[in-house]
Amino acid sequence: MARPVLQVIVGTTRQQRKGIAVARWVEQAAREHGGFDVELVDLAEVALPIFDEPNHPRLGQYVHQHTRDWSATVSRADAFVVVTPEYNHSFPAAVKNALDHLFVEWADKPVGLASYGGVSAGQRAATALKPVLVSMRMVPVVEGIAVPFFAQHIDEGGVFQPTDQLAGSATAMLDELQRLSTALRPLRTGQA
Amino acid sequence: MARPVLQVIVGTTRQQRKGIAVARWVEQAAREHGGFDVELVDLAEVALPIFDEPNHPRLGQYVHQHTRDWSATVSRADAFVVVTPEYNHSFPAAVKNALDHLFVEWADKPVGLASYGGVSAGQRAATALKPVLVSMRMVPVVEGIAVPFFAQHIDEGGVFQPTDQLAGSATAMLDELQRLSTALRPLRTGQA
Repeated sequence: MARPVLQVIVGTTRQQRKGIAVARWVEQAAREHGGFDVELVDLAEVALPIFDEPNHPRLGQYVHQHTRDWSATVSRADAFVVVTPEYNHSFPAAVKNALDHLFVEWADKPVGLASYGGVSAGQRAATALKPVLVSMRMVPVVEGIAVPFFAQHIDEGGVFQPTDQLAGSATAMLDELQRLSTALRPLRTGQA
Repeated sequence: MARPVLQVIVGTTRQQRKGIAVARWVEQAAREHGGFDVELVDLAEVALPIFDEPNHPRLGQYVHQHTRDWSATVSRADAFVVVTPEYNHSFPAAVKNALDHLFVEWADKPVGLASYGGVSAGQRAATALKPVLVSMRMVPVVEGIAVPFFAQHIDEGGVFQPTDQLAGSATAMLDELQRLSTALRPLRTGQA
Protein backbone atom coordinates (compact mmCIF):
# COMPACT_ATOMS: atom_id res chain seq x y z
CA MET A 1 0.00 0.00 0.00
CA ALA A 2 1.23 3.48 -0.84
CA ARG A 3 2.28 5.70 2.02
CA PRO A 4 -0.35 8.19 3.14
CA VAL A 5 -0.04 11.70 1.75
CA LEU A 6 0.62 14.29 4.44
CA GLN A 7 0.09 17.92 3.52
CA VAL A 8 1.86 20.54 5.59
CA ILE A 9 -0.35 23.60 5.16
CA VAL A 10 1.47 26.91 5.51
CA GLY A 11 -0.99 29.23 7.24
CA THR A 12 1.08 32.40 7.00
CA THR A 13 0.77 34.30 3.73
CA ARG A 14 2.33 37.74 4.26
CA GLN A 15 5.14 38.59 1.89
CA GLN A 16 7.45 39.29 4.81
CA ARG A 17 6.38 36.30 6.89
CA LYS A 18 8.88 34.70 9.22
CA GLY A 19 6.71 31.69 10.03
CA ILE A 20 7.56 29.97 6.77
CA ALA A 21 10.69 28.78 8.59
CA VAL A 22 8.55 26.86 11.07
CA ALA A 23 6.60 25.25 8.23
CA ARG A 24 9.78 24.21 6.43
CA TRP A 25 11.03 22.57 9.62
CA VAL A 26 7.74 20.67 10.01
CA GLU A 27 7.99 19.59 6.38
CA GLN A 28 11.55 18.37 6.95
CA ALA A 29 10.58 16.53 10.13
CA ALA A 30 7.72 14.83 8.26
CA ARG A 31 10.05 13.72 5.47
CA GLU A 32 12.55 12.35 7.98
CA HIS A 33 9.74 10.58 9.84
CA GLY A 34 9.37 8.33 6.83
CA GLY A 35 5.71 7.44 7.26
CA PHE A 36 4.30 9.76 4.62
CA ASP A 37 4.58 11.18 1.18
CA VAL A 38 4.93 14.82 2.17
CA GLU A 39 3.68 17.89 0.33
CA LEU A 40 4.21 21.50 1.38
CA VAL A 41 0.99 23.40 0.61
CA ASP A 42 1.67 27.11 0.81
CA LEU A 43 -1.52 29.18 1.15
CA ALA A 44 0.38 32.17 -0.22
CA GLU A 45 0.75 30.25 -3.48
CA VAL A 46 -2.79 28.86 -3.36
CA ALA A 47 -3.86 32.52 -3.12
CA LEU A 48 -7.56 32.04 -2.55
CA PRO A 49 -9.68 35.19 -2.50
CA ILE A 50 -12.16 35.64 0.33
CA PHE A 51 -14.77 32.88 0.07
CA ASP A 52 -17.42 33.66 -2.55
CA GLU A 53 -19.00 30.42 -3.68
CA PRO A 54 -22.79 30.51 -4.22
CA ASN A 55 -23.38 27.02 -2.83
CA HIS A 56 -22.47 25.41 0.46
CA PRO A 57 -19.16 23.61 0.02
CA ARG A 58 -20.65 20.36 1.27
CA LEU A 59 -22.40 20.13 -2.12
CA GLY A 60 -19.09 20.27 -4.00
CA GLN A 61 -20.69 22.45 -6.70
CA TYR A 62 -17.89 24.93 -7.07
CA VAL A 63 -18.17 27.70 -9.65
CA HIS A 64 -14.68 29.18 -9.29
CA GLN A 65 -11.68 27.49 -10.84
CA HIS A 66 -9.54 28.40 -7.82
CA THR A 67 -11.94 26.42 -5.61
CA ARG A 68 -11.83 23.44 -7.95
CA ASP A 69 -8.05 23.52 -7.93
CA TRP A 70 -7.99 23.76 -4.15
CA SER A 71 -10.45 20.84 -3.95
CA ALA A 72 -8.15 18.71 -6.10
CA THR A 73 -5.16 19.54 -3.90
CA VAL A 74 -6.84 18.72 -0.59
CA SER A 75 -8.59 15.65 -1.97
CA ARG A 76 -5.31 13.80 -2.45
CA ALA A 77 -4.25 14.18 1.18
CA ASP A 78 -4.68 11.55 3.88
CA ALA A 79 -3.55 13.75 6.76
CA PHE A 80 -2.63 17.35 7.46
CA VAL A 81 -0.50 19.54 9.62
CA VAL A 82 -1.75 23.11 9.77
CA VAL A 83 1.11 25.44 10.61
CA THR A 84 -0.46 28.60 11.98
CA PRO A 85 0.52 31.91 13.48
CA GLU A 86 -1.74 33.64 15.97
CA TYR A 87 -3.30 36.98 15.06
CA ASN A 88 -5.12 38.82 17.84
CA HIS A 89 -5.59 35.73 20.02
CA SER A 90 -7.01 33.52 17.26
CA PHE A 91 -6.26 32.05 13.85
CA PRO A 92 -5.52 34.29 10.84
CA ALA A 93 -8.14 34.82 8.14
CA ALA A 94 -6.00 33.00 5.57
CA VAL A 95 -6.33 29.70 7.47
CA LYS A 96 -10.08 29.99 8.03
CA ASN A 97 -10.64 31.04 4.44
CA ALA A 98 -8.78 28.01 3.10
CA LEU A 99 -10.77 25.69 5.37
CA ASP A 100 -14.12 27.30 4.55
CA HIS A 101 -13.72 26.85 0.80
CA LEU A 102 -14.14 23.07 1.03
CA PHE A 103 -15.93 20.47 3.11
CA VAL A 104 -15.94 16.78 2.21
CA GLU A 105 -12.33 17.05 1.08
CA TRP A 106 -11.31 17.50 4.74
CA ALA A 107 -13.58 14.87 6.26
CA ASP A 108 -12.34 11.74 8.02
CA LYS A 109 -8.73 12.85 7.91
CA PRO A 110 -6.53 13.50 10.94
CA VAL A 111 -4.99 16.90 11.45
CA GLY A 112 -2.19 18.10 13.68
CA LEU A 113 -1.58 21.71 14.62
CA ALA A 114 1.76 23.45 14.70
CA SER A 115 1.35 26.91 16.16
CA TYR A 116 3.91 29.55 16.93
CA GLY A 117 3.95 32.94 18.54
CA GLY A 118 5.35 34.80 21.51
CA VAL A 119 4.64 33.69 25.04
CA SER A 120 1.36 32.11 23.88
CA ALA A 121 3.16 29.87 21.39
CA GLY A 122 0.15 30.45 19.16
CA GLN A 123 -1.92 28.11 21.30
CA ARG A 124 -4.96 30.39 21.34
CA ALA A 125 -5.08 30.09 17.54
CA ALA A 126 -4.82 26.30 17.79
CA THR A 127 -7.50 26.13 20.45
CA ALA A 128 -9.84 28.30 18.38
CA LEU A 129 -9.28 26.10 15.34
CA LYS A 130 -10.24 22.79 16.92
CA PRO A 131 -14.04 23.25 16.89
CA VAL A 132 -13.79 24.43 13.29
CA LEU A 133 -11.88 21.31 12.29
CA VAL A 134 -14.33 19.07 14.13
CA SER A 135 -17.28 20.74 12.40
CA MET A 136 -15.80 19.59 9.10
CA ARG A 137 -15.39 16.00 10.36
CA MET A 138 -11.65 16.27 10.58
CA VAL A 139 -9.98 14.47 13.46
CA PRO A 140 -7.68 16.82 15.38
CA VAL A 141 -4.95 14.94 17.24
CA VAL A 142 -3.96 15.92 20.73
CA GLU A 143 -0.24 15.72 20.00
CA GLY A 144 0.87 19.03 18.55
CA ILE A 145 3.63 21.55 18.21
CA ALA A 146 3.55 24.91 19.99
CA VAL A 147 6.57 27.15 19.54
CA PRO A 148 6.99 30.06 21.98
CA PHE A 149 9.15 33.02 20.94
CA PHE A 150 9.63 31.34 17.60
CA ALA A 151 11.76 34.07 16.03
CA GLN A 152 14.53 33.21 18.52
CA HIS A 153 14.81 29.77 16.93
CA ILE A 154 15.40 31.06 13.38
CA ASP A 155 19.08 31.28 12.54
CA GLU A 156 20.83 33.83 10.31
CA GLY A 157 20.17 31.66 7.28
CA GLY A 158 16.41 31.75 7.96
CA VAL A 159 16.38 28.12 9.13
CA PHE A 160 14.31 27.09 12.14
CA GLN A 161 16.40 25.25 14.73
CA PRO A 162 14.12 23.18 16.97
CA THR A 163 14.86 22.28 20.55
CA ASP A 164 14.90 18.59 21.43
CA GLN A 165 11.52 19.08 23.05
CA LEU A 166 10.04 20.51 19.84
CA ALA A 167 11.57 17.74 17.76
CA GLY A 168 10.00 15.21 20.12
CA SER A 169 6.61 16.91 19.81
CA ALA A 170 6.86 16.70 16.04
CA THR A 171 7.62 12.99 16.14
CA ALA A 172 4.76 12.28 18.52
CA MET A 173 2.33 14.24 16.34
CA LEU A 174 3.50 12.53 13.16
CA ASP A 175 3.23 9.09 14.76
CA GLU A 176 -0.35 9.82 15.77
CA LEU A 177 -1.23 11.20 12.32
CA GLN A 178 0.16 8.03 10.76
CA ARG A 179 -1.79 5.80 13.14
CA LEU A 180 -5.07 7.62 12.52
CA SER A 181 -4.69 8.18 8.80
CA THR A 182 -4.26 4.43 8.36
CA ALA A 183 -7.27 3.64 10.50
CA LEU A 184 -9.51 6.26 8.89
CA ARG A 185 -8.61 5.53 5.29
CA PRO A 186 -11.28 2.85 4.75
CA LEU A 187 -13.96 5.35 5.78
CA ARG A 188 -13.15 7.41 2.74
CA THR A 189 -12.99 4.62 0.18
CA GLY A 190 -16.17 2.83 1.07
CA GLN A 191 -14.27 -0.09 2.64
CA ALA A 192 -15.44 0.55 6.20
CA MET B 1 -21.87 67.29 21.61
CA ALA B 2 -22.26 65.38 18.36
CA ARG B 3 -23.94 62.02 18.50
CA PRO B 4 -21.54 59.08 18.55
CA VAL B 5 -20.90 57.38 15.21
CA LEU B 6 -22.08 53.79 15.14
CA GLN B 7 -20.81 51.60 12.34
CA VAL B 8 -22.83 48.51 11.46
CA ILE B 9 -20.23 46.21 9.92
CA VAL B 10 -21.60 43.73 7.40
CA GLY B 11 -19.59 40.55 7.90
CA THR B 12 -21.02 38.61 4.99
CA THR B 13 -19.41 39.27 1.63
CA ARG B 14 -20.60 36.56 -0.76
CA GLN B 15 -22.33 37.82 -3.89
CA GLN B 16 -25.36 35.68 -3.11
CA ARG B 17 -25.44 36.42 0.62
CA LYS B 18 -28.75 36.45 2.41
CA GLY B 19 -27.40 37.89 5.64
CA ILE B 20 -27.32 41.42 4.24
CA ALA B 21 -31.02 41.54 5.20
CA VAL B 22 -30.08 41.08 8.87
CA ALA B 23 -27.52 43.88 8.62
CA ARG B 24 -30.02 46.25 7.01
CA TRP B 25 -32.48 45.56 9.82
CA VAL B 26 -29.79 46.30 12.43
CA GLU B 27 -28.93 49.51 10.56
CA GLN B 28 -32.60 50.52 10.56
CA ALA B 29 -33.00 49.69 14.26
CA ALA B 30 -29.92 51.81 15.03
CA ARG B 31 -31.31 54.77 13.06
CA GLU B 32 -34.66 54.48 14.83
CA HIS B 33 -32.89 54.24 18.19
CA GLY B 34 -31.82 57.82 17.71
CA GLY B 35 -28.67 57.75 19.81
CA PHE B 36 -26.17 57.54 16.97
CA ASP B 37 -25.10 58.75 13.60
CA VAL B 38 -25.29 55.41 11.81
CA GLU B 39 -23.11 54.13 8.97
CA LEU B 40 -23.48 50.82 7.17
CA VAL B 41 -19.99 49.48 6.49
CA ASP B 42 -20.20 46.66 3.99
CA LEU B 43 -17.08 44.47 3.95
CA ALA B 44 -18.01 43.37 0.44
CA GLU B 45 -17.50 46.97 -0.69
CA VAL B 46 -14.42 47.48 1.50
CA ALA B 47 -13.04 44.44 -0.36
CA LEU B 48 -9.84 43.96 1.60
CA PRO B 49 -7.48 41.29 0.29
CA ILE B 50 -6.05 38.79 2.77
CA PHE B 51 -3.86 40.71 5.26
CA ASP B 52 -0.43 41.46 3.85
CA GLU B 53 1.01 44.43 5.70
CA PRO B 54 4.74 44.22 6.53
CA ASN B 55 4.37 45.86 9.96
CA HIS B 56 2.22 45.04 12.95
CA PRO B 57 -0.96 47.12 12.71
CA ARG B 58 -0.40 48.55 16.18
CA LEU B 59 2.34 50.68 14.59
CA GLY B 60 -0.09 52.21 12.11
CA GLN B 61 2.58 52.11 9.39
CA TYR B 62 0.40 50.88 6.57
CA VAL B 63 1.89 50.43 3.11
CA HIS B 64 -1.29 49.57 1.23
CA GLN B 65 -3.80 52.22 0.25
CA HIS B 66 -6.69 49.86 1.01
CA THR B 67 -5.45 49.59 4.61
CA ARG B 68 -5.13 53.37 4.93
CA ASP B 69 -8.66 53.79 3.61
CA TRP B 70 -9.96 51.17 6.02
CA SER B 71 -8.12 52.89 8.87
CA ALA B 72 -9.81 56.19 8.01
CA THR B 73 -13.22 54.53 7.98
CA VAL B 74 -12.88 52.78 11.32
CA SER B 75 -11.18 55.76 12.98
CA ARG B 76 -14.31 57.87 12.73
CA ALA B 77 -16.45 55.36 14.62
CA ASP B 78 -17.31 55.53 18.32
CA ALA B 79 -19.04 52.15 18.48
CA PHE B 80 -19.68 49.12 16.31
CA VAL B 81 -22.11 46.35 15.66
CA VAL B 82 -20.52 43.42 13.86
CA VAL B 83 -23.17 41.48 11.96
CA THR B 84 -21.75 38.04 11.37
CA PRO B 85 -22.74 34.72 9.93
CA GLU B 86 -21.25 31.50 11.26
CA TYR B 87 -19.07 29.39 9.00
CA ASN B 88 -18.06 25.98 10.31
CA HIS B 89 -18.74 26.81 13.95
CA SER B 90 -16.78 30.09 14.00
CA PHE B 91 -16.53 33.49 12.35
CA PRO B 92 -15.92 33.85 8.61
CA ALA B 93 -12.52 34.87 7.29
CA ALA B 94 -13.89 38.19 6.00
CA VAL B 95 -14.64 39.37 9.54
CA LYS B 96 -11.30 38.31 11.01
CA ASN B 97 -9.45 39.78 8.05
CA ALA B 98 -11.11 43.17 8.47
CA LEU B 99 -10.31 43.18 12.19
CA ASP B 100 -6.69 42.07 11.73
CA HIS B 101 -5.87 44.89 9.32
CA LEU B 102 -6.06 47.54 12.07
CA PHE B 103 -5.40 47.89 15.78
CA VAL B 104 -5.56 51.24 17.57
CA GLU B 105 -8.52 52.23 15.40
CA TRP B 106 -10.62 49.66 17.27
CA ALA B 107 -9.36 50.37 20.78
CA ASP B 108 -11.52 51.72 23.60
CA LYS B 109 -14.71 51.42 21.58
CA PRO B 110 -17.69 49.25 22.49
CA VAL B 111 -18.86 46.57 20.12
CA GLY B 112 -22.07 44.58 19.93
CA LEU B 113 -22.48 41.34 18.03
CA ALA B 114 -25.41 40.42 15.83
CA SER B 115 -25.05 36.83 14.72
CA TYR B 116 -27.36 34.68 12.69
CA GLY B 117 -27.52 31.10 11.55
CA GLY B 118 -29.57 27.97 11.92
CA VAL B 119 -30.21 26.39 15.30
CA SER B 120 -26.98 27.93 16.62
CA ALA B 121 -28.12 31.45 15.75
CA GLY B 122 -24.48 32.08 14.88
CA GLN B 123 -23.58 32.17 18.54
CA ARG B 124 -20.46 30.06 18.12
CA ALA B 125 -19.12 32.72 15.75
CA ALA B 126 -19.94 35.43 18.29
CA THR B 127 -18.34 33.49 21.12
CA ALA B 128 -15.19 32.90 19.09
CA LEU B 129 -14.98 36.59 18.25
CA LYS B 130 -15.02 37.92 21.79
CA PRO B 131 -11.43 37.12 22.76
CA VAL B 132 -10.30 38.60 19.44
CA LEU B 133 -12.15 41.83 20.14
CA VAL B 134 -10.76 42.00 23.68
CA SER B 135 -7.22 41.48 22.40
CA MET B 136 -7.63 44.70 20.41
CA ARG B 137 -8.89 46.60 23.46
CA MET B 138 -12.43 46.73 22.17
CA VAL B 139 -15.20 46.46 24.75
CA PRO B 140 -17.69 43.74 23.77
CA VAL B 141 -21.10 44.29 25.33
CA VAL B 142 -23.06 41.41 26.76
CA GLU B 143 -26.30 42.52 25.13
CA GLY B 144 -26.43 41.12 21.64
CA ILE B 145 -28.56 39.80 18.84
CA ALA B 146 -28.66 36.13 17.90
CA VAL B 147 -31.04 35.12 15.12
CA PRO B 148 -31.87 31.42 14.76
CA PHE B 149 -33.15 30.15 11.41
CA PHE B 150 -32.68 33.64 10.05
CA ALA B 151 -33.81 32.88 6.51
CA GLN B 152 -37.33 32.25 7.83
CA HIS B 153 -37.51 35.91 8.88
CA ILE B 154 -36.71 37.31 5.43
CA ASP B 155 -39.84 38.16 3.47
CA GLU B 156 -40.38 37.93 -0.28
CA GLY B 157 -39.04 41.43 -0.73
CA GLY B 158 -35.76 40.44 0.92
CA VAL B 159 -36.57 42.40 4.08
CA PHE B 160 -35.79 40.97 7.50
CA GLN B 161 -38.84 40.93 9.77
CA PRO B 162 -37.74 40.73 13.41
CA THR B 163 -39.74 39.18 16.19
CA ASP B 164 -40.56 41.39 19.17
CA GLN B 165 -37.87 39.53 21.11
CA LEU B 166 -35.24 40.36 18.49
CA ALA B 167 -36.33 43.98 18.34
CA GLY B 168 -35.97 44.14 22.12
CA SER B 169 -32.50 42.63 21.95
CA ALA B 170 -31.49 45.25 19.41
CA THR B 171 -32.70 48.08 21.63
CA ALA B 172 -30.92 46.70 24.69
CA MET B 173 -27.67 46.34 22.74
CA LEU B 174 -27.93 49.83 21.28
CA ASP B 175 -28.65 51.34 24.71
CA GLU B 176 -25.55 49.68 26.13
CA LEU B 177 -23.40 50.76 23.16
CA GLN B 178 -24.59 54.33 23.68
CA ARG B 179 -23.84 54.20 27.41
CA LEU B 180 -20.33 52.82 26.90
CA SER B 181 -19.38 54.87 23.87
CA THR B 182 -20.11 58.02 25.84
CA ALA B 183 -18.12 56.83 28.85
CA LEU B 184 -15.15 55.64 26.80
CA ARG B 185 -14.89 58.61 24.50
CA PRO B 186 -12.54 60.65 26.76
CA LEU B 187 -10.05 57.75 26.76
CA ARG B 188 -9.53 58.30 23.07
CA THR B 189 -9.17 62.06 23.10
CA GLY B 190 -6.72 62.41 25.95
CA GLN B 191 -9.39 63.84 28.25
CA ALA B 192 -9.47 60.93 30.67
